Amino acid sequence: MRIAQRLDELGVDVIEAGFAAVSDGEFAAVRSIAQQGLKAEVASAGRGIQNDVDAVIKSGVQTMCMIIPTSDLHIECKLRKTHDQVLKITEECVTYAKAHGLKVDLLAEDATRSNFDYLLKVFQTATDCGVDRITPCDTVGILTPDRAYDFFIKLTDSIKTPVGVHCHNDFGMAVANTIAALGAGAQMVHGTINGLGERAGNAALEEIAISLRSLYQQQLNIKTELFYSTSQLVSRLTGIYTQPNKAIVGENAFKHESGIHTQGMLANPLTYEPFTPEMVGCTRRIAPGKHSGSHAIKTDLDIMGIKPTEEQFKEIFQRIKELGDKGKNIMDADVLAIAENIMHLDGIKPIKLQEMTFVGGGAVTATASVRLCINGKDTWGTAVGVGPVDATINAVKNAIKEKELITLEQYNVKAITGGTDAMVEVVVHMRKGNRFVTAMGVCEDIVKASIDAVISCMNVLITDYSNTNNKT
Amino acid sequence: MRIAQRLDELGVDVIEAGFAAVSDGEFAAVRSIAQQGLKAEVASAGRGIQNDVDAVIKSGVQTMCMIIPTSDLHIECKLRKTHDQVLKITEECVTYAKAHGLKVDLLAEDATRSNFDYLLKVFQTATDCGVDRITPCDTVGILTPDRAYDFFIKLTDSIKTPVGVHCHNDFGMAVANTIAALGAGAQMVHGTINGLGERAGNAALEEIAISLRSLYQQQLNIKTELFYSTSQLVSRLTGIYTQPNKAIVGENAFKHESGIHTQGMLANPLTYEPFTPEMVGCTRRIAPGKHSGSHAIKTDLDIMGIKPTEEQFKEIFQRIKELGDKGKNIMDADVLAIAENIMHLDGIKPIKLQEMTFVGGGAVTATASVRLCINGKDTWGTAVGVGPVDATINAVKNAIKEKELITLEQYNVKAITGGTDAMVEVVVHMRKGNRFVTAMGVCEDIVKASIDAVISCMNVLITDYSNTNNKT
Repeated sequence: MRIAQRLDELGVDVIEAGFAAVSDGEFAAVRSIAQQGLKAEVASAGRGIQNDVDAVIKSGVQTMCMIIPTSDLHIECKLRKTHDQVLKITEECVTYAKAHGLKVDLLAEDATRSNFDYLLKVFQTATDCGVDRITPCDTVGILTPDRAYDFFIKLTDSIKTPVGVHCHNDFGMAVANTIAALGAGAQMVHGTINGLGERAGNAALEEIAISLRSLYQQQLNIKTELFYSTSQLVSRLTGIYTQPNKAIVGENAFKHESGIHTQGMLANPLTYEPFTPEMVGCTRRIAPGKHSGSHAIKTDLDIMGIKPTEEQFKEIFQRIKELGDKGKNIMDADVLAIAENIMHLDGIKPIKLQEMTFVGGGAVTATASVRLCINGKDTWGTAVGVGPVDATINAVKNAIKEKELITLEQYNVKAITGGTDAMVEVVVHMRKGNRFVTAMGVCEDIVKASIDAVISCMNVLITDYSNTNNKT
Repeated sequence: MRIAQRLDELGVDVIEAGFAAVSDGEFAAVRSIAQQGLKAEVASAGRGIQNDVDAVIKSGVQTMCMIIPTSDLHIECKLRKTHDQVLKITEECVTYAKAHGLKVDLLAEDATRSNFDYLLKVFQTATDCGVDRITPCDTVGILTPDRAYDFFIKLTDSIKTPVGVHCHNDFGMAVANTIAALGAGAQMVHGTINGLGERAGNAALEEIAISLRSLYQQQLNIKTELFYSTSQLVSRLTGIYTQPNKAIVGENAFKHESGIHTQGMLANPLTYEPFTPEMVGCTRRIAPGKHSGSHAIKTDLDIMGIKPTEEQFKEIFQRIKELGDKGKNIMDADVLAIAENIMHLDGIKPIKLQEMTFVGGGAVTATASVRLCINGKDTWGTAVGVGPVDATINAVKNAIKEKELITLEQYNVKAITGGTDAMVEVVVHMRKGNRFVTAMGVCEDIVKASIDAVISCMNVLITDYSNTNNKT
């Protein structure tokens, strides 16, 4: 429901809400989406069999995406029917669905590997029965832009029913193929947020829309500025996260690290950005790193109120590069730590972890205690939590005075793969007022990695050099 | 080094080993790769400045990828030089590099947004100075396949130096653009494993190679069957994981769930696979799920030696769909649990967790004890570990007799985002002989989620119904 509402806000024309016949739960979901009074047309998918059409009718949606296989392989190996039988099924099912008031989008499955004349016959049969849209599916993603163009030119020349395009991404070309089809007269695009879908997924809606807008200057009804938050919502709800290097909505899509890049970026973002992050509702991030030029690091230190001399800066810069060479991802907390060390500002670091102990188990509430040295004074904190990490972090929060002001905005653990003794990388984003910082903890023990990251972040936030003359 | 060796095994022609001038660590890495005696040509990137060329020479590589910006924007905003100065720099740097025995690949940065005549002048100047290859870079990924084709036709018509193609993926079209450029006469492709690179990354080498092989029937020297393991290696070493729906090498690229799909798959894999998983060194996986048809579930049960009656099967099938409707990812252990429940086989479940306790902290070695009921008999296990998860799982291993036979093949935790009390999903893959099963544990406490997953897996592995007449 939340995804459907968000797609509606985003401005998509048709929402395919699910496969009504697949299960009771999915039927209920499709029906409740159909009843929401969304601006978008709501559709449900189903096979070309009586049972599926009935489920779609019963669900109350406006439209059925009716899947009919058209390739020899699918007709023979999967359906075990003859080509003539499939034509007859098409006729019966489209007629039946239309008679019950449904709009019908006929999805020809494996259309791009079908005999083209036979495919036309299926589409012509559906057209004669009053089908509303026809969509050849590139079910295993074998089109190329050239072949997509030729295919759709031939199709739109032959049949006057509005044509849609439905591409899979098995070879990484779904978006380019979709756009080629539009150039050849297709009028509707099937896309998914984050390119989700079977196997390598379907064409990513956000990549298609931004390409059409930025590269082809097309006006769209899509509110592209909702793409980033929509992508995040879909990731969270499906549990399928985009890779950092995903186009448009990936974590790194507007992150700039290399030195040669950041210097240009600071002069003019267009040097390394084809479109603004605002267009998709995202923000730019200049990250320090081993490839960072001095411009980027200076900007970073300035934000933290640190004013090194020319010589100190040179040393800070060198140290960051060395750390990067060791393979470390450099965060605000690292830049601060290096600057403090070189500028002999260490005494100011307010929080030090002296002790921590946690206990938990099956019938034991996870419980932790920490001893922190805060500005030279020992303080204890204790807490319970849902597990050892939560209990320990809660204990730290309880131990500090600023607990009301400092918030843990995000706690992320990078996927752990390998064994139970694999390294764990914890990244935390914390905020105090308008200041927003990031730190990482790395350890085989997730509890230790977590507490390291949190205390590093707190130290960056609590430390304030802006009123000290730290240049001398 | 490990990535370079693997790329060499994979059969790539040129390895760009790093940016020699960026830091001492990167310089050392480039040099040691150059000294490995790899079959591949080893190159290093650098800007068109004396310092960078010197670093490349000193590193001992054969080739320099010399980056020279050619767009007005880059020349004016970043370099703050004139167009004539850039021509002069090109002449000086190429001549200098060639005089020192380097092969030179001239990378024209932001070439696709450059004045074309000026770009030709830069390439002509480089050619006159003996450059070996010229590569226009689509630095912000703004090409489309059509535009890429036109661009490269014009370029290869004008200049006879071998031309490379270097595409970024900001709009999701890097692979299609690269292939279009090859069709227009480009002779060399710049690609990266997993499509890694700045922002949305570069063109993914595995997508280009498999497209050329499968869609264009090209013979390549690339050992494509090493792609999957190479992708995994690069993910592990960089910490940047591919999304499940990544083409070619994603976790789901050969995973089939939907009922309409699996039925076809079992009859003939070609119905839903454009190429075999073996081609990239991966394996097919038919996953149970709420969209699964009865064919898929039956196959799954059969592997586990479970023989339900027709009626029992119907109930098992229904229950799996209900579980899927609740949003659960269905694993082997779930199918087994449902089958056991419906067929009243519960008594056979050999391992039950009775108690677990763990303790850890700053100066405390993580220690855990578990009490398991194994075939009705209480058994204790204790162990230490690198953290509470490792200690607890080690304690379980110590408690069971089959510890020598059963191995934990993989322990994965899905990225945790949100707060320290977010749900944690642990998936474990375990093996006993040739049997390989998967189970999941979900809990806010990572220790509990982990132990649940491990014990579920062990139960699937230890339970053996194949010799019982479980149909009655």
